[in-house]
Amino acid sequence: MILRPATRAELPAVLALLADEDRVVDPASVRVTEAYERAFADIASDPRNELLVLVDEGPVLGCLQATYVPGLGRGGAERALIEAVRIRADLRGAGLGRRLMELAADRARGRGCALVQLTSNKERADAHRFYASLGYARSHEGFKLAL
Amino acid sequence: MILRPATRAELPAVLALLADEDRVVDPASVRVTEAYERAFADIASDPRNELLVLVDEGPVLGCLQATYVPGLGRGGAERALIEAVRIRADLRGAGLGRRLMELAADRARGRGCALVQLTSNKERADAHRFYASLGYARSHEGFKLAL
Repeated sequence: MILRPATRAELPAVLALLADEDRVVDPASVRVTEAYERAFADIASDPRNELLVLVDEGPVLGCLQATYVPGLGRGGAERALIEAVRIRADLRGAGLGRRLMELAADRARGRGCALVQLTSNKERADAHRFYASLGYARSHEGFKLAL
Repeated sequence: MILRPATRAELPAVLALLADEDRVVDPASVRVTEAYERAFADIASDPRNELLVLVDEGPVLGCLQATYVPGLGRGGAERALIEAVRIRADLRGAGLGRRLMELAADRARGRGCALVQLTSNKERADAHRFYASLGYARSHEGFKLAL
């Protein structure tokens, strides 16, 4: 099982994961709009953004987006921001999420990142236990402002 | 009062703001290491990162870093991540922080961002009230993992 940047051909599978967390969505049913195409191209062409997929031999098992943020803290090291973490609904509970997050942390460490950070909706108590079990400190409040 | 990218000449002033939140640090006393130089150059040359300073006529009054994250959510719009928010210690309580955050949100909106997000240490109750008063929803838990 490896974690690597998604190919354009895998975009429908990633959009299917993002579309519904609670059931399996058929990638063939996803409409890849021009806005999605553009966002995918923006991520793929940005050296500090990666749309990463967890794959074995076959289809996409899970995904996340990593953004590597340069900054003046921590001796000038990058920090990795993780968003859009998903495991295919029918594959949950088998440790794939743990593998996905471990591989993402390894990848960030390999780049020289000093920190991985993420936020999780306050209603997702299961996710909070999961991140805590991976060693994450629940040290911050996460604020969002819609524009 | 305007918000604009910091110049290289203002880097010591920004590092002074980041060095101590509770007292005024003299920018002349800050050692600008090679790592800080490199991080500043990384931010300045990245079209999705900005080290922004709040200035009037004279010295730097406050700062923050904005990272514009492309993504597949919200119709493919960017989201703005805000980090390293500071107002000079002797200028607090005069509404400068509010102005700083409003100008940063305007700037993000002007780029087409759909959302601004940030995290604040759980111990900073004053900061939480401040962000709530600006309309931010405290909807998420913020997790950090040191690498």
